[in-house]
Amino acid sequence: MQLVIGNKNYSSWSMRPWVLLTHFGIPFQEQMLYFDHFQPGSQFSASAAQHSPTARVPVLVEDDGFSTWDSLAIAERVADLFPQHPVWPREARARARARTLAATMHSGFGDLRRLCPMNIEADLRAVGERLLTEHPTLRADLQRLQALWEPELQARGGPWLMGAEFGAVDAYFAPVAMRVTRYGLPLGERCMAYVRALEAHAAVQAWVAGALAEQRFVPDDEPYRSAPGEAPR
Amino acid sequence: MQLVIGNKNYSSWSMRPWVLLTHFGIPFQEQMLYFDHFQPGSQFSASAAQHSPTARVPVLVEDDGFSTWDSLAIAERVADLFPQHPVWPREARARARARTLAATMHSGFGDLRRLCPMNIEADLRAVGERLLTEHPTLRADLQRLQALWEPELQARGGPWLMGAEFGAVDAYFAPVAMRVTRYGLPLGERCMAYVRALEAHAAVQAWVAGALAEQRFVPDDEPYRSAPGEAPR
Ligand SMILES: N[C@@H](CCC(=O)N[C@@H](CS)C(=O)NCC(=O)O)C(=O)O
Ligand SMILES: N[C@@H](CCC(=O)N[C@@H](CS)C(=O)NCC(=O)O)C(=O)O
Repeated sequence: MQLVIGNKNYSSWSMRPWVLLTHFGIPFQEQMLYFDHFQPGSQFSASAAQHSPTARVPVLVEDDGFSTWDSLAIAERVADLFPQHPVWPREARARARARTLAATMHSGFGDLRRLCPMNIEADLRAVGERLLTEHPTLRADLQRLQALWEPELQARGGPWLMGAEFGAVDAYFAPVAMRVTRYGLPLGERCMAYVRALEAHAAVQAWVAGALAEQRFVPDDEPYRSAPGEAPR
Repeated sequence: MQLVIGNKNYSSWSMRPWVLLTHFGIPFQEQMLYFDHFQPGSQFSASAAQHSPTARVPVLVEDDGFSTWDSLAIAERVADLFPQHPVWPREARARARARTLAATMHSGFGDLRRLCPMNIEADLRAVGERLLTEHPTLRADLQRLQALWEPELQARGGPWLMGAEFGAVDAYFAPVAMRVTRYGLPLGERCMAYVRALEAHAAVQAWVAGALAEQRFVPDDEPYRSAPGEAPR
């Protein structure tokens, strides 16, 4: 089984299935397609198009070539292929709620995503402070995030969204934790504890180590820096 | 069980679970929250917030109040609650592919959605023609749609995306069929046959009848008309 991904520093969608598979110890080969300028005909697009009609990553490619693209569909495929692992909670209502939270992230939080693209190696706290002042929609996205997480953490006591067990829904929010810390975005205490738990998770740390080792600056993913060493603005 | 929805004429996300439940003959009560101006504090937002932290529709509310919001999570919840119905295909790879297509729609096709919002009662073919000339991104979305549908229709022979059986993935594309016909968007012959099959589907027709009976003009959902009778531009 192969997981086709983008740069670990930038590819928030790729991070989700990678963390999920790694957490459950499911063996896979990683195939990295480095980001470029994303224009039609780019090297990245041409390579990604070999695995998916969307020409995006991540893509899960099984040994005979059967492919599942889209991070959420990959989570479901992994759950189907490896029923021994609690990818989604075993209890039906916790499962429904976990899927609801993951799907809400999957199709929402456009302003958080657009204004604060994942950039693991960067310290963007000064940028985050400015963005929060300038963009009420970013503040609204953070409130929505808090409104999604808080009741689950409170009802089930954490440390994960569905309680004691880490699952696909937590893998789904791992890139959000990256944004919260890199851009210094404020959340309530219980939610910040969840962000810290995500940051300390072994599979997340393994991804982060890969991101830091990468050392590839992609201008198209850098709205706030013109070079790696430079102070963001 | 209650399904909280928005206006049938406009609410593409609500159409999906409504068509799904109706197709399988699963009994539910419909609760309509009419769209207004979507500003914080609006009647719509206040009512929707009673069922979901996102303050959006659709929401599936079970008899004891347990709620699942987000159209894709609702499809999964319905599949879990009613295993007797083939909400997703029984065969594992067809199921993976159906979920992949639904998820691709769920988080993508932003330009098609933004430029051609669903408006069942309107004839927007002149607008569609103009949009196609002006927006290469709309043409790209149509090509992507074709690239998603065509191989499945060809491999399985239609009439539905996964072959003989209508399921959640088809309910997922029902609002897309509405856009294709209302805006007169071009697709290849096989894909147009699929659009016609969706339009002729009983549950889709029942939703369309409701939309036509509604007669509520919502300016915020009408980028191309200033009154129902007026010629769009
Ligand atoms: N809905 C998709 C989104 C995938 C996506 O947008 N991936 C980005 C990288 S994180 C990509 O491939 N971008 C390339 C492009 O837009 O051309 C998923 O959940 O997997
Ligand atoms: N990802 C959600 C999207 C739901 C959504 O955006 N619904 C629209 C109506 S079709 C809505 O409630 N809009 C109200 C608002 O944006 O305030 C889903 O799949 O259900």
